[in-house]
Amino acid sequence: MAAAECCLVSPTPISIWAPFGALFHLINKKRYIRKSQRVLSEASDTQYSFYSVRLMPPRSSGIPKDETMRKKAVIVFSGGQDSTTCLIHALPKYDEIHCITFDYGQRHRAEIEAARELAQALGVTAHTVLDLKLLNELTVSSLTRDNIPVPIANEAGIEVPNTFIPGRNILFLTFASIYAYQVQAQTVITGVCETDFSGYPDCRDDFVKALNSAIKLGMDYQLQFETPLMWLTKSETWALAEYHGQLELVREHTLSCYNGIKGSGCGECDACSLRSKGLNEFLKNKKRFMNSMRYRLSLT
Amino acid sequence: MAAAECCLVSPTPISIWAPFGALFHLINKKRYIRKSQRVLSEASDTQYSFYSVRLMPPRSSGIPKDETMRKKAVIVFSGGQDSTTCLIHALPKYDEIHCITFDYGQRHRAEIEAARELAQALGVTAHTVLDLKLLNELTVSSLTRDNIPVPIANEAGIEVPNTFIPGRNILFLTFASIYAYQVQAQTVITGVCETDFSGYPDCRDDFVKALNSAIKLGMDYQLQFETPLMWLTKSETWALAEYHGQLELVREHTLSCYNGIKGSGCGECDACSLRSKGLNEFLKNKKRFMNSMRYRLSLT
Repeated sequence: MAAAECCLVSPTPISIWAPFGALFHLINKKRYIRKSQRVLSEASDTQYSFYSVRLMPPRSSGIPKDETMRKKAVIVFSGGQDSTTCLIHALPKYDEIHCITFDYGQRHRAEIEAARELAQALGVTAHTVLDLKLLNELTVSSLTRDNIPVPIANEAGIEVPNTFIPGRNILFLTFASIYAYQVQAQTVITGVCETDFSGYPDCRDDFVKALNSAIKLGMDYQLQFETPLMWLTKSETWALAEYHGQLELVREHTLSCYNGIKGSGCGECDACSLRSKGLNEFLKNKKRFMNSMRYRLSLT
Repeated sequence: MAAAECCLVSPTPISIWAPFGALFHLINKKRYIRKSQRVLSEASDTQYSFYSVRLMPPRSSGIPKDETMRKKAVIVFSGGQDSTTCLIHALPKYDEIHCITFDYGQRHRAEIEAARELAQALGVTAHTVLDLKLLNELTVSSLTRDNIPVPIANEAGIEVPNTFIPGRNILFLTFASIYAYQVQAQTVITGVCETDFSGYPDCRDDFVKALNSAIKLGMDYQLQFETPLMWLTKSETWALAEYHGQLELVREHTLSCYNGIKGSGCGECDACSLRSKGLNEFLKNKKRFMNSMRYRLSLT
């Protein structure tokens, strides 16, 4: 299925090898999956060269594409289930994929390490970790550190949580867009999801569309935001990983757990509960979730 | 004039002192202007307490406002002519003004120092300098520093300037909005201007309005972007400073010069040329520019 979809979205130019295309893709995909699993199990600091472990070779016909025709995407990548599934879904569609991970002082450095290992194993073009610890300085309690005093919210009688940072996704998408402009990518991908969103308004479809319009105007640049998971349930997100033959990779090597434990996690926190509930439902009724996921994403 | 406008935009509750209001404001304004000039000439690291040098006393009636009724604004403040004029224009309208200056490795640290001195002299509630040097890491040349190589634009045959950062104002406004949410301000003010904008699409009115909509959705918070200079010429911006009795302060203590020289600057760079051209035109025909500025801003 994945191979067929890959051919659909990025058809190789007609050549004498065309009739062998589907077979070639299937063999190549299996080889790739084995390779990415091996890379992850050996997880090391090895530097991967360009396309060393790409899902599909960029030019199977041997005819190099014009540089300006190359399809490029930037993905907001945390190394969790959602963004990793988005990455796996995007790999066959693009000639170059750039991952951005934001370091805003997450509780567990393991999250950034997991993202780095996954990006390397999946063979993305580039993986950049941006230091956004500034975000933590924008809490009310931090604002009081400045040179002229500012009233503390509680003293003033206002209820402002001093850990919650609204607008985090606005910043992530804006930085990803600036990056996209610099590398001349046409797409920014994010794994935000309205279906089981956690109450954050910056995960909603309306907001993503509005910000996309504002950014196109503000940079005078044609850039599309893609949100493949926006209308999927957690079980359907698992189905998408299965569709691309990467269920095990997502299951074992992504990190969503609030306690910083990879794979099935601590099993107790909210993130683990949501993840395992979705997985169990999917495993119980694979066919149903594969069908609904295919329908929502218009996949064959 | 300024006193009259101040009364219009933030009327004091009726009290036995009401008939003396205009006279009181005039005396107070003159005292304030003298004080802010003295503070600047003595420029030091002194910590100013709340409202120590406010343009208008926050509660002339003696009746304290309910905390939730306090009008608060956050201003993107560089210490240049435009943002300083915006600040002067905003002071009589708000109970609290928070200035944000972005440190993104500007050529001259003097810019940040000028902003700091002006914010203190004008008696804002708080002045925050946010470290945004990360912006410089988002140039194409910098992207190549990462752990997996990325093609250099020139090698790939694409013309991408490696110093220009699109989306700078998008970030400034987003950070200012996050800050505004934290201190529960209702307004974000920026001195961007379409009339003599420097070719940057993120200075246009359409963009500012689109981003305002996106941010309201993304933070689920009613926040208004104000752009008082959007349709003013440079001469009209000088007229606005004069209207508030602060022409000399803006002329002597703001820093717009690319060579980092305060006041009239080096006299040679583009910024100095634009600034002095506007000033000379204004001084030649004050009445005309005062009238057109008043008309555009609907001032009495």
